Amino acid sequence: MSSTIAPLQGLVAATFTPLHEDRSLHLEAIPPMVDRLADQEIAALYVLGSTGEGASLTFDERCAVAESFVSAASGRLPVIVQVGSESLMQARHLAAHASRVGADAISAVSPVYFKPDSVETLVASMAEIAGGAPELPFYYYHIPAVTGVGVSAVEFLKLAEQRIENLRGVKFTSQNVFEFQTCVEYAQDRLQIFWGLDEMLQYGLAAGAVAAVGSTYNFATAVYQRLLTAFAAGDMETVRQEQLRSQAIVRAFLPYGPRGAQKAIMKMIGLDCGPSRLPVPTLTQTQYAALERELQEIGFFEWIQPLAETSLP
Amino acid sequence: MSSTIAPLQGLVAATFTPLHEDRSLHLEAIPPMVDRLADQEIAALYVLGSTGEGASLTFDERCAVAESFVSAASGRLPVIVQVGSESLMQARHLAAHASRVGADAISAVSPVYFKPDSVETLVASMAEIAGGAPELPFYYYHIPAVTGVGVSAVEFLKLAEQRIENLRGVKFTSQNVFEFQTCVEYAQDRLQIFWGLDEMLQYGLAAGAVAAVGSTYNFATAVYQRLLTAFAAGDMETVRQEQLRSQAIVRAFLPYGPRGAQKAIMKMIGLDCGPSRLPVPTLTQTQYAALERELQEIGFFEWIQPLAETSLP
Amino acid sequence: MSSTIAPLQGLVAATFTPLHEDRSLHLEAIPPMVDRLADQEIAALYVLGSTGEGASLTFDERCAVAESFVSAASGRLPVIVQVGSESLMQARHLAAHASRVGADAISAVSPVYFKPDSVETLVASMAEIAGGAPELPFYYYHIPAVTGVGVSAVEFLKLAEQRIENLRGVKFTSQNVFEFQTCVEYAQDRLQIFWGLDEMLQYGLAAGAVAAVGSTYNFATAVYQRLLTAFAAGDMETVRQEQLRSQAIVRAFLPYGPRGAQKAIMKMIGLDCGPSRLPVPTLTQTQYAALERELQEIGFFEWIQPLAETSLP
Amino acid sequence: MSSTIAPLQGLVAATFTPLHEDRSLHLEAIPPMVDRLADQEIAALYVLGSTGEGASLTFDERCAVAESFVSAASGRLPVIVQVGSESLMQARHLAAHASRVGADAISAVSPVYFKPDSVETLVASMAEIAGGAPELPFYYYHIPAVTGVGVSAVEFLKLAEQRIENLRGVKFTSQNVFEFQTCVEYAQDRLQIFWGLDEMLQYGLAAGAVAAVGSTYNFATAVYQRLLTAFAAGDMETVRQEQLRSQAIVRAFLPYGPRGAQKAIMKMIGLDCGPSRLPVPTLTQTQYAALERELQEIGFFEWIQPLAETSLP
Repeated sequence: MSSTIAPLQGLVAATFTPLHEDRSLHLEAIPPMVDRLADQEIAALYVLGSTGEGASLTFDERCAVAESFVSAASGRLPVIVQVGSESLMQARHLAAHASRVGADAISAVSPVYFKPDSVETLVASMAEIAGGAPELPFYYYHIPAVTGVGVSAVEFLKLAEQRIENLRGVKFTSQNVFEFQTCVEYAQDRLQIFWGLDEMLQYGLAAGAVAAVGSTYNFATAVYQRLLTAFAAGDMETVRQEQLRSQAIVRAFLPYGPRGAQKAIMKMIGLDCGPSRLPVPTLTQTQYAALERELQEIGFFEWIQPLAETSLP
Repeated sequence: MSSTIAPLQGLVAATFTPLHEDRSLHLEAIPPMVDRLADQEIAALYVLGSTGEGASLTFDERCAVAESFVSAASGRLPVIVQVGSESLMQARHLAAHASRVGADAISAVSPVYFKPDSVETLVASMAEIAGGAPELPFYYYHIPAVTGVGVSAVEFLKLAEQRIENLRGVKFTSQNVFEFQTCVEYAQDRLQIFWGLDEMLQYGLAAGAVAAVGSTYNFATAVYQRLLTAFAAGDMETVRQEQLRSQAIVRAFLPYGPRGAQKAIMKMIGLDCGPSRLPVPTLTQTQYAALERELQEIGFFEWIQPLAETSLP
Repeated sequence: MSSTIAPLQGLVAATFTPLHEDRSLHLEAIPPMVDRLADQEIAALYVLGSTGEGASLTFDERCAVAESFVSAASGRLPVIVQVGSESLMQARHLAAHASRVGADAISAVSPVYFKPDSVETLVASMAEIAGGAPELPFYYYHIPAVTGVGVSAVEFLKLAEQRIENLRGVKFTSQNVFEFQTCVEYAQDRLQIFWGLDEMLQYGLAAGAVAAVGSTYNFATAVYQRLLTAFAAGDMETVRQEQLRSQAIVRAFLPYGPRGAQKAIMKMIGLDCGPSRLPVPTLTQTQYAALERELQEIGFFEWIQPLAETSLP
Repeated sequence: MSSTIAPLQGLVAATFTPLHEDRSLHLEAIPPMVDRLADQEIAALYVLGSTGEGASLTFDERCAVAESFVSAASGRLPVIVQVGSESLMQARHLAAHASRVGADAISAVSPVYFKPDSVETLVASMAEIAGGAPELPFYYYHIPAVTGVGVSAVEFLKLAEQRIENLRGVKFTSQNVFEFQTCVEYAQDRLQIFWGLDEMLQYGLAAGAVAAVGSTYNFATAVYQRLLTAFAAGDMETVRQEQLRSQAIVRAFLPYGPRGAQKAIMKMIGLDCGPSRLPVPTLTQTQYAALERELQEIGFFEWIQPLAETSLP
């Protein structure tokens, strides 16, 4: 008998994992980050995914990070813990741990070293993980450009719905809006499909997304909140303008490596998350300064002000 | 001094090349096809692209097909001839021929056997082709999933604008709406970026497309005309409904191989275009019957009636 | 000051990890497996690589397996422990553990979820791991078809030799014999490049390999021992005949999925290693029977007899 | 009733297509090139393949080049004309033309823009081409790294042998020596499998190749002739030494782009073939000079002397 999570609405922040300069965990940096996200009306947290460098942490570290986020959220906003791992057994243990410490849901990416060779194998693999926390909602994390797994999200949903009792949906990270829309149609009200590409948020919304998971929602929250408000009001010109800002931000940091660069941006806005763990490179000081300059030039630091909507054209 | 073509607006049909049962050209089937497209207010024709199996025809055949379409259009709607070829010299000759017979514009895909290894080489290659018809507008055909060419359309535009005098834009066939939008922003009013994925048309429109090139516009014209009208009126619910119909159609024929299946659909609606040329497979009779049945079940034959908008929910 | 391992010569068995039917570790099955390998004059063991499903085990399981193999080997043959992991810190801990329990060397594959984006990042990543056991020889595990890491093994060697003090070589698993030979030339006597494709062993030898790591050496040891003896004697006809046998074996099991199928073969020869862990599929009983029949038909069970060389044509 | 060509033995030169500085054909440069190849006991010519930039030429140019090579060979050595084309009908015409002008065999690569989606489609496509010259031996040109066609050469052979009467073998250009050897085993004496990677020639020979097609055989003929002689004599040390020279040559020119660089080398040895056609880049003067210097340093110009074998260690 698995508990449920109400369908989420709005922005889900894919959180960073703060590190000290020596690359050890900096758990004390989590509460202020979460406070800010809660203040900015973020709908939920997606912890230890690609942005959170989940794959680069040890088992114990992943447990500690999950626990810290749940504790920092303290019921103000739901916490989804990403527990995917090359070892399905380890992933299952992480799922059980997430449940024990009070997470609201779990999610998992496919193994990539041994790629599931069919939809059956993928579903069976995810079932092993989901079974570690049968009382929590489970969301499959579909990100084919990273995993190289060729199974379509729709094929997955159709089989998984029969075999994974606590399946509640998919975090869909791919440019294939057509496939996303097919998932949304299939899902109806039974399942939820999260949109996963910040720089294409408006297209996800138009295709039926009601919640989106992303990394830039951590720091450009205001831009996307205005986009959502405008979308709800049918003000497509504002939607477009805010999406263009989102794209300008992404274009600015992409050349520096998306993950390291976004941790740098967190520092620029006063929420120092420290460096990245290898194999994710960390920005050099020169790169940091150059990125900061570029962001200033495009207006980033004004755009992200919560009240900006009243003063901007 | 190159002539211009006014920016196109609406649906550009990527035309089929009609063949006899023995796979020889069936040029007599072109005029009725063009008449119907003109009647349905198609904005222009895109001839001999992927849908038109341009790559599978000989030089002489490509010339004959181009000439037939220009003649059948007889000024009612502009004709863009796709002249790309593994041999840039052959492509250049095709460009010159297109100009001589009165085409309104040319377009070209990159060679794929020898893939251009840099934006410089790609632009220099396209310049060789465009130079064959300097008096005609030239559109680069970007379709990375088929060509495997890794140069981004934006990079191409920036350099090509300096080096190809008759460059007028890009036919953009990729799910990367973010990159498309970046192209549109870059293009401003100087260049035109055609959207190339029918099943994602509404997202192309939202990203700024004012014209789209596609194969399903040949037979599901009414669906897309209603979508365009609704988009212009801000009626997003109708946009969504018509896009879902478009997607249902694509999902129905995709498993049979998109190219052969669409020629089968043309026959179903009374515009027999014959079989495909190898290596594109032609549907067997069994497959044809199965596809027809599926299309009936989803309502395809009602959806494509021009007046359907008044009677459908 | 790092200890050394004499250059290995001959066959290194990439060992299987035995599991019970419930997929838990079956450590008791390790000693008889190792005894047989020692008896058959296997040169060393390569533990917890792709064959050993290292990626599918938890940290604690990997420690237990490494310890069991070292203990079972009890000095009769060197044990190389593969410690690569998505988490470099976990890999480093595994390296330290391998050293503590008496392993003779460590090896590591690159992370694949976050792929190193340059030779610098790859070398820095491997350095983190190697630093966990600075007193042990370290071998980089190059297997681009699985990892998708684009850095060439030669580039890696050149930079890593400067930055990783205990670097001793590469396990090279790729069909690119040209690149292998370039590595061998570069390595001279300073480093050792292990050949990693059993079905192409004779080409690795011809290119300069003196040791090879592979999974089929576990059960078709006699075939390869005859091949090695013949190669040393310049008897190329026997080399060819034994390589063709090796290829016939690989062709027989490949369609069943190489990993699950090879565990099935271990059972056929009396060394039951149990099932595989998902996402690696396990053979069904029907598949098992079919594979056994095919192996019988080609002569597999005669070929693998140690004394077969005297009686076969 | 198709004529036969005796199995070839030794080196088959994949010839360059000489161009004037303005990129038009320079047919007069063909006879001296062929004379030299005939003098150096090249076994046959493979005309208009990747090296010959067949894909970059127009139909008429391909006819002219084929005719010139046949005429220049004048019976001294067989000429295989590569007639593959995106348009199978054009390829079929090229096949018929090759036959009319006296070519000894034809060969064809798969189309790549529309990739055959199955072995059936690939074989049917090749059958269309082979049917254009049923009296000539036909060789399928397998080069998956360029075409992206996923059908294995063995699968192709098995079906094609039943459906293409004049099938005589495959030109196999891939590092997969295992698959090559499987083809050779399958082919027996009925078909011939040409080896296609110069820098891995010794492995092709060891796997059963008796003839190899390659571009470096045009200019480093002596190196490979010595390698072949040594291989026949079982002198593996010389085989190895000459293969290492071959590899050193390839490593020297590869960074400049293999096709443009090899045309530069032809000029260095007095057989000016002019520039390449786009999209293949031509070396700049600076690059040319740098490459020449590197080749001097490694000893290239001594290695390629026909009598070098007597004077080298």
